Amino acid sequence: MCFANERTSNMTTDFFEQSLALHRKHRGKLQITSKVALASRDDLSLAYTPGVAGPCEAIARDPDSAYELTMKGNAVAVLSDGSAVLGLGAIGPSAALPVMEGKAILFKEFAGIDAIPICVEAATDEDLIDVARAIAPTFGGINLEDIRAPRCFVVEQALQDIGIPVFHDDQHGTAIVLLAAIINSAKIVGKRVDELSVVVSGAGAAGSAIVKILRCRNDASSSCVMAADVVVCDSKGIISSTRTDLDPYKRELLSFSNRHDQSGTLHDALRGADVFIGVSRGNLLTANDVRSMAKDSIILAMANPDPEIMPDEARRGGAAIVGTGRSDFANQVNNVLVFPGIFRGALDARAPRISDRMKLAAVHALADAVATPAVEQILPNPLDREVSTKVAMAVRNAAELNTP
Amino acid sequence: MCFANERTSNMTTDFFEQSLALHRKHRGKLQITSKVALASRDDLSLAYTPGVAGPCEAIARDPDSAYELTMKGNAVAVLSDGSAVLGLGAIGPSAALPVMEGKAILFKEFAGIDAIPICVEAATDEDLIDVARAIAPTFGGINLEDIRAPRCFVVEQALQDIGIPVFHDDQHGTAIVLLAAIINSAKIVGKRVDELSVVVSGAGAAGSAIVKILRCRNDASSSCVMAADVVVCDSKGIISSTRTDLDPYKRELLSFSNRHDQSGTLHDALRGADVFIGVSRGNLLTANDVRSMAKDSIILAMANPDPEIMPDEARRGGAAIVGTGRSDFANQVNNVLVFPGIFRGALDARAPRISDRMKLAAVHALADAVATPAVEQILPNPLDREVSTKVAMAVRNAAELNTP
Repeated sequence: MCFANERTSNMTTDFFEQSLALHRKHRGKLQITSKVALASRDDLSLAYTPGVAGPCEAIARDPDSAYELTMKGNAVAVLSDGSAVLGLGAIGPSAALPVMEGKAILFKEFAGIDAIPICVEAATDEDLIDVARAIAPTFGGINLEDIRAPRCFVVEQALQDIGIPVFHDDQHGTAIVLLAAIINSAKIVGKRVDELSVVVSGAGAAGSAIVKILRCRNDASSSCVMAADVVVCDSKGIISSTRTDLDPYKRELLSFSNRHDQSGTLHDALRGADVFIGVSRGNLLTANDVRSMAKDSIILAMANPDPEIMPDEARRGGAAIVGTGRSDFANQVNNVLVFPGIFRGALDARAPRISDRMKLAAVHALADAVATPAVEQILPNPLDREVSTKVAMAVRNAAELNTP
Repeated sequence: MCFANERTSNMTTDFFEQSLALHRKHRGKLQITSKVALASRDDLSLAYTPGVAGPCEAIARDPDSAYELTMKGNAVAVLSDGSAVLGLGAIGPSAALPVMEGKAILFKEFAGIDAIPICVEAATDEDLIDVARAIAPTFGGINLEDIRAPRCFVVEQALQDIGIPVFHDDQHGTAIVLLAAIINSAKIVGKRVDELSVVVSGAGAAGSAIVKILRCRNDASSSCVMAADVVVCDSKGIISSTRTDLDPYKRELLSFSNRHDQSGTLHDALRGADVFIGVSRGNLLTANDVRSMAKDSIILAMANPDPEIMPDEARRGGAAIVGTGRSDFANQVNNVLVFPGIFRGALDARAPRISDRMKLAAVHALADAVATPAVEQILPNPLDREVSTKVAMAVRNAAELNTP
């Protein structure tokens, strides 16, 4: 889950209490149900012994048939170590379980996928990698969730060749929905995406993924979107080659960002920029910062509960379009628009991984799902079930193009 | 699943083909469903962000509350490495998945438990132990399944202190249902259990567990059942101190079995014995072997598809009571009579492990579930849903007795 700590002072307590009551009432949010009858001896003989040896032998002969004969073809593990849960931090795997259950039921509701929460104790990156590899035979895909940086990078990278898609939603789901939001916002203000100058505040999981997708070099030139430049800031300011305090993951971002090797603060970076993306912390900007940006600026301020700048304040500074992670403002940027369709498409295509081409297909399908983008409607409504279907079809087609 | 390769020549092909069709039609046998509504923005806010932070924080403060606020309190992992599946052997985790799905839906059907198949790649014992430890935060219990000996002993032992029950059904489920069958058979023929001399053919997972439960020394003397003697045979004959080819697990059985340190063949062992338990392979015994046993002998021949001796042949040799693993003969010995209730009781008691006392409680509850044992009814009907409830209550009570 990307949008950490999504509370607002006025609604927090109410939602927390109501949510506690809901969870207590149902003892969690998901259950297993059987798709087959178990009433008679014959039912047992078909679903279990001796009949079940038939599908077992078929899979032993042809491992791919597991996609037709078992849950695998429709099952996704929602895997977390609980190291970066909401805005609550490293609360551990048990406390992360309500989030993973929530994600699982969203998978079902929006894409018909049987997603299963797997919250694990993992002291090291390698522990988490080992668990994911081990459980891969059971699942058609693995959604990594709420894993701290840089562990999330290490783990996802290590798992790209296990034969099933492994996708860290906090990185790529967020990047995809943000890029779709930028594309539609650019249409509204009449700017070209490849002429945009973008500032990203935050260089964690989401920030890095946004930078990469904005500056991706993809052989699918038709679907590639590349902003003119992206400047990334962390809490110390602009990530530039003169910084001596960068870890390898932030250093890697230099090859995608900051073409003019600018130094300085976030405020320096914003001068003349077209787009601000905040995946950092609340109340970083003022109306004056927005005034220093280019005309018709686009502000996507995702920090929660308080965005990097409140919509009113951003508009006072001259922003043309403002989005946040919150459902109580217009233009909610919500990963549920992406992850169900991404996995649905990947499962349907039996893609071995989720390629850049598939991610970009999701971006365009999501952007196109808004027929006429408007200042207060840059993205579809998160409750619109048809979006997942559109994203899934695009992702599936892109996956099939990848196969020789 | 204990009863390997439960096929009979006449029904095998039919059941295999029908089962394949059933599995293909449904793409597996289980699905996830949501227990909460997801129709409105408020629904999302309660099940997911921002409300879900409420239960997360509650669990972070009090880890035990995960039992009330998440799936954990009703969830069991059905964990297998696919190293000993049915009679098919080490067909691997993917091919084992249909069995684990079958087990999962039986858990739901017979005890309302949300069981989740987890088939894993595990090259070593340690790999399997690591996965079980890692996933423990998500589950209230782990049912180990279809794991070869001696790995199943090593893994189960290593996991007894992880805080949730870990139970290898192929060992203990089988032992429990067999002991209940012996108790009721003894009632019918008018023998005392503690005067029975028992021969076990097979020293693998099931065989060892049967020996141990038949000779257990339990502080709960009221519920303890101890046969006068048990002699175990493997494919080389009687397991005795003179054998030089015993692995440590078979050697350990000497402290429970063969009080007179008898040597020889299975046929030698049977002379004068009251009970034969077969968990080995088909067609080992003849009517003459049964004739050499004590009067009113009890034969529980579990090998599949062909029992160690066919019921007709056993009766010709003078057996008073015959049971098998097959559903097409009277007295089917079926683990489904035990494992759902064992876990239901353990989950309800929040037992940290399944103690000998809990296993013996299950034995007696199961035996008592047959009001009037008869030659062709030593056990309840495997389709009788009330059995699980009875077993669960007994197990729960026994678990609570364990807690100081």
